[in-house]
Amino acid sequence: MNKIKTAIIGGTGYTGVELLRLLHEHPQAEVVAVTSREFFGQRVDSVFASLLGQCELIFSKPDDAVLNTCDVVFFATPHGVAMENAGAFIEKGIKVIDLGADFRIDDVLEWERWYGQAHTQPKLLAKAVYGLPEVFRTQIKKARLVANPGCYPTAILLALKPLLDKKIIDLSTIIADCKSGVSGAGRGTNQATLLCEASESLKAYGVGGHRHYPEIMQQLNVIANSPVRLTFVPHLVPMIRGMQASVYVDLLDPEADVHSLFNTTYENEKFVIMLTAGNYPETRNVRSSNFCQIGLQKIPNSNKLVVLSVVDNLVKGASGQAIQNMNLMFGMDETLGLEKIGLLP
Amino acid sequence: MNKIKTAIIGGTGYTGVELLRLLHEHPQAEVVAVTSREFFGQRVDSVFASLLGQCELIFSKPDDAVLNTCDVVFFATPHGVAMENAGAFIEKGIKVIDLGADFRIDDVLEWERWYGQAHTQPKLLAKAVYGLPEVFRTQIKKARLVANPGCYPTAILLALKPLLDKKIIDLSTIIADCKSGVSGAGRGTNQATLLCEASESLKAYGVGGHRHYPEIMQQLNVIANSPVRLTFVPHLVPMIRGMQASVYVDLLDPEADVHSLFNTTYENEKFVIMLTAGNYPETRNVRSSNFCQIGLQKIPNSNKLVVLSVVDNLVKGASGQAIQNMNLMFGMDETLGLEKIGLLP
Amino acid sequence: MNKIKTAIIGGTGYTGVELLRLLHEHPQAEVVAVTSREFFGQRVDSVFASLLGQCELIFSKPDDAVLNTCDVVFFATPHGVAMENAGAFIEKGIKVIDLGADFRIDDVLEWERWYGQAHTQPKLLAKAVYGLPEVFRTQIKKARLVANPGCYPTAILLALKPLLDKKIIDLSTIIADCKSGVSGAGRGTNQATLLCEASESLKAYGVGGHRHYPEIMQQLNVIANSPVRLTFVPHLVPMIRGMQASVYVDLLDPEADVHSLFNTTYENEKFVIMLTAGNYPETRNVRSSNFCQIGLQKIPNSNKLVVLSVVDNLVKGASGQAIQNMNLMFGMDETLGLEKIGLLP
Amino acid sequence: MNKIKTAIIGGTGYTGVELLRLLHEHPQAEVVAVTSREFFGQRVDSVFASLLGQCELIFSKPDDAVLNTCDVVFFATPHGVAMENAGAFIEKGIKVIDLGADFRIDDVLEWERWYGQAHTQPKLLAKAVYGLPEVFRTQIKKARLVANPGCYPTAILLALKPLLDKKIIDLSTIIADCKSGVSGAGRGTNQATLLCEASESLKAYGVGGHRHYPEIMQQLNVIANSPVRLTFVPHLVPMIRGMQASVYVDLLDPEADVHSLFNTTYENEKFVIMLTAGNYPETRNVRSSNFCQIGLQKIPNSNKLVVLSVVDNLVKGASGQAIQNMNLMFGMDETLGLEKIGLLP
Repeated sequence: MNKIKTAIIGGTGYTGVELLRLLHEHPQAEVVAVTSREFFGQRVDSVFASLLGQCELIFSKPDDAVLNTCDVVFFATPHGVAMENAGAFIEKGIKVIDLGADFRIDDVLEWERWYGQAHTQPKLLAKAVYGLPEVFRTQIKKARLVANPGCYPTAILLALKPLLDKKIIDLSTIIADCKSGVSGAGRGTNQATLLCEASESLKAYGVGGHRHYPEIMQQLNVIANSPVRLTFVPHLVPMIRGMQASVYVDLLDPEADVHSLFNTTYENEKFVIMLTAGNYPETRNVRSSNFCQIGLQKIPNSNKLVVLSVVDNLVKGASGQAIQNMNLMFGMDETLGLEKIGLLP
Repeated sequence: MNKIKTAIIGGTGYTGVELLRLLHEHPQAEVVAVTSREFFGQRVDSVFASLLGQCELIFSKPDDAVLNTCDVVFFATPHGVAMENAGAFIEKGIKVIDLGADFRIDDVLEWERWYGQAHTQPKLLAKAVYGLPEVFRTQIKKARLVANPGCYPTAILLALKPLLDKKIIDLSTIIADCKSGVSGAGRGTNQATLLCEASESLKAYGVGGHRHYPEIMQQLNVIANSPVRLTFVPHLVPMIRGMQASVYVDLLDPEADVHSLFNTTYENEKFVIMLTAGNYPETRNVRSSNFCQIGLQKIPNSNKLVVLSVVDNLVKGASGQAIQNMNLMFGMDETLGLEKIGLLP
Repeated sequence: MNKIKTAIIGGTGYTGVELLRLLHEHPQAEVVAVTSREFFGQRVDSVFASLLGQCELIFSKPDDAVLNTCDVVFFATPHGVAMENAGAFIEKGIKVIDLGADFRIDDVLEWERWYGQAHTQPKLLAKAVYGLPEVFRTQIKKARLVANPGCYPTAILLALKPLLDKKIIDLSTIIADCKSGVSGAGRGTNQATLLCEASESLKAYGVGGHRHYPEIMQQLNVIANSPVRLTFVPHLVPMIRGMQASVYVDLLDPEADVHSLFNTTYENEKFVIMLTAGNYPETRNVRSSNFCQIGLQKIPNSNKLVVLSVVDNLVKGASGQAIQNMNLMFGMDETLGLEKIGLLP
Repeated sequence: MNKIKTAIIGGTGYTGVELLRLLHEHPQAEVVAVTSREFFGQRVDSVFASLLGQCELIFSKPDDAVLNTCDVVFFATPHGVAMENAGAFIEKGIKVIDLGADFRIDDVLEWERWYGQAHTQPKLLAKAVYGLPEVFRTQIKKARLVANPGCYPTAILLALKPLLDKKIIDLSTIIADCKSGVSGAGRGTNQATLLCEASESLKAYGVGGHRHYPEIMQQLNVIANSPVRLTFVPHLVPMIRGMQASVYVDLLDPEADVHSLFNTTYENEKFVIMLTAGNYPETRNVRSSNFCQIGLQKIPNSNKLVVLSVVDNLVKGASGQAIQNMNLMFGMDETLGLEKIGLLP
């Protein structure tokens, strides 16, 4: 079998270089182009010196003809870019996986409200599949356009899916207190993410409204098939990678056997690891890997359950999940290129 | 006026050296002794080189006669030590402030259940005052024995006091998702707090039960004057100092003017700073200072309120608050020696 | 005695807020103005929330008349600003301390070569005194314009002064391998100092030439009164504050008693602390304090001596030293407001 | 071809888990046993949760018969253990790679002086090959016992090899100022490597003598074939992984074309990457990879050359190099399982 030809549009950010790292080790894929308007003509390893000795690519322009020879294109771009360019690829039979936000929210008005610009491709949007394999695997396999989920949505949805499927929690009072490493904020210059501003400190942000909120809400409503109410507060943690969702729910029956429920739901999911009772996840244990690890704790004398789920925001929360989606879209083993052990310490 | 003579029992941990730092700058106090069985006879600055050039003290034994010349003794010891030794000082008219846990929980059985040993001084315990000045100022002024609060209790109680005072929240469903820097775990050797284990990671811990839980519960019940139900989940954050409590409550009336309520409650409290609407605290903004900063956010279309409070766990969460208590116990200006600007960056 | 009235020009960077923190606790100084073109009219504590509750100042424009009521003005500005504005203050009898680089290099051409712009005030430059009290105390006391040293020069010059004074090293082969925390790079947005770029990594930078090099060279030549050759390689270390100079020299006589020499040289210097044989400094031990700690080690079977000196780059390496200079310029005790114990941990 | 059967003796430290991570992805090797006296009978992923879902191994006892079925045994143990146990494996025809220090120093007395105990296996020691492939590749291919180099020696020797080979530097005045992440200190509990002691700080350590010194000296003398004098000062840097050697040498001819020399020396070395003039390495660019990156800078107006080399202390400085050695010992492609792109950010 020939290797799948892939291209990365916008390869100068953290999800771009993470795609390069992961695709480099994928046995059935190769990267034929990485684009950057800013660095056009320069070697990719001149921007990311971690690639030295392993990658001979030169940054292409986004309209380079080589892109049309690809089987799949990854957009690792700010919102608004994939929207304008995905259609032309799809018309040529090239599959598209957007790591940005352009195709994540079905409701055009809702998207426009949160992203502050017009959505110019509602027809394309209608065809996009939400790329969370543990929920939408069947649809992803047939998709030509996948909207790769945000990192917070991935951690939260995997934490809640078993509970929503079985309808065993009060849907009106879910709280997701989330903690993210700083790489989630991207590689753009920003005073707030300077080492001297963000290290040795923790803060909540986006408390009054975060763009991942409507994305999470949409999927919660789909999975629950019923209206859900969510309080979502993200926090910035002084570390590069890693994300935890601490999700608080009210069980309808405090006696429910939640460990069994989660184990059953995820027993065939290679990338969701349930911890045994009394064990709780640490973000470092999934660093650089595509795993989500989940721990559970009931609060005594109450109907509260705490679900703790961790992912690497750049892997299962972005580039790793994109490759998982690629594997599915091309009929390959979903785990190809992703069965790596995380970096510890 | 003569300076108050102070001593620190157990001065080789983080709260001990923080007491030394703060008392060094206190205009009305001096440290006459610091004890350590292990380092007896050695210079204190040989253990803490930050003191070089500023501190000539030698570690004393805990039974050194100089302790009896003091006006106040701080116990910066593991639980169990202050219990055995505080009484002798009090009998001599020496005031005691225990930064440990021995006198924080009124119910002896409850204390024994969480700390796994017998409480040998129930009579002394009955006389102890819980040293949270914003709640128990009057009692502290007259106290001979103060139980200095834990760091989590301080952050959580200050976040909830105004709401409990006015009885405007549902007491049955409070959630405190807390985040602490690693110094809260102390200076003892422990694999889990090695840099290579604790940095670049975040984890929940003590999810099934943390010793600060009964302490918080007791005070919540006292302040609310009614039974309260609390879910408390602490997390370890990869930074040295700093603590945030993210507290989720259900307002009985979602229209309640919570900013006014908090502003009014704390308008005369020098060490509690309310942030204006749309602003949220960062732990670094109180680093090395005795301040607690609090921000508020109502969640739209719900009755949820999020209260975000930050303290430096070693200052307002430990040694700074101990000095605030000392000031009160000796009839001095409560802010003496504590009106410092925090270290930023 | 009335308090000295001070102003800070350019108070939105790290040296600016550090001046505010230190001056707040100075018993004989007060800050009457902080300027910022960008934040004019806003509260200073809206930019630096660490000041909340402790500072009522509003950012002024740099030409505000209040500046003319000051006794001393601190320039905490990028190079080029103090040069244009210092003269007017000095003419009015207001002393000036420049924390920037405009008056550090006596040779105008050399300055212009390294800073890439014309030096417009050579006459003013000729009057400036280099503000390293341990070397130029007498001159500083009489100065109207002080050029506050850079952080690397401070650490290196204090490490070498005793050796140069006594002419006991080979001047042709000095190596200073220096390590700095990231705050030395300032608060401006810069991709290279993002947390995700600078944490969990170490790199040399400016290896081919750093602006502190001519400044160090000039002073080495002055102190040695003879030509000196220096190899200076700075490194960026993943921490906020702190700087170490590891200085390698060849002793003319390997038997020289260097501990005695350093002890004698610095015995009356309050802010230089010599460590005893076998002890080496850690940057954290001077965090937030104005101290320089120095350790020495001879290399067996050679004539090599290693001098290890640490400072907090924002205190002894910038704002603390500026206040030390202010104290000298106004005939006050040099240590006023600076006898603080550093923040540990 | 059957996969090579490997075992890890002492698999509960950082080099042990790193071997597991790397061997997991090796196409021609499998791990059949990991030993631990302390955790005998427990799952390996109960100690290292990063392995969950990827590793079914149970900790064996060090004398488990399964070890005798192996082709190669890695010792990831403190010094003194491999010495006692390697011989029995070698007699059975099982190759041994010791990541510890037992076979690194040819001179028994010198070893005993630095390690404070008797060396019980001088005959075995005489057969050991020093496992630095870029220097001793031929010997490693035939070796039955490989002494895997220390991390500092690896970084320093690769920085100096081209210069020593060509005899173009003054051998009497080499200085290696080295900086290491904290994982080099291992996973044992130790107050000095607690996060609150080691983060946000930098310090020199082992200045008066470090155990890697005799190891480096021995190899320098071998490579130079002439006596060498070295000043070696290691520093602890607040990061988990990464090491830089900043090596200062005096060129005999300041006009020597050092870039060409290094490029030529290393042009066929897959794991040594030369940076072009004006570029300097960052430790993060080799994080998790087996590469050593080297940059060069001549100091103007002098004969000084600075060589900056970086490695990941746990990979090229330990477990990655061990696998590189294994590949050579078994006649496989030296790069097998090691051509990974490092983790960035």
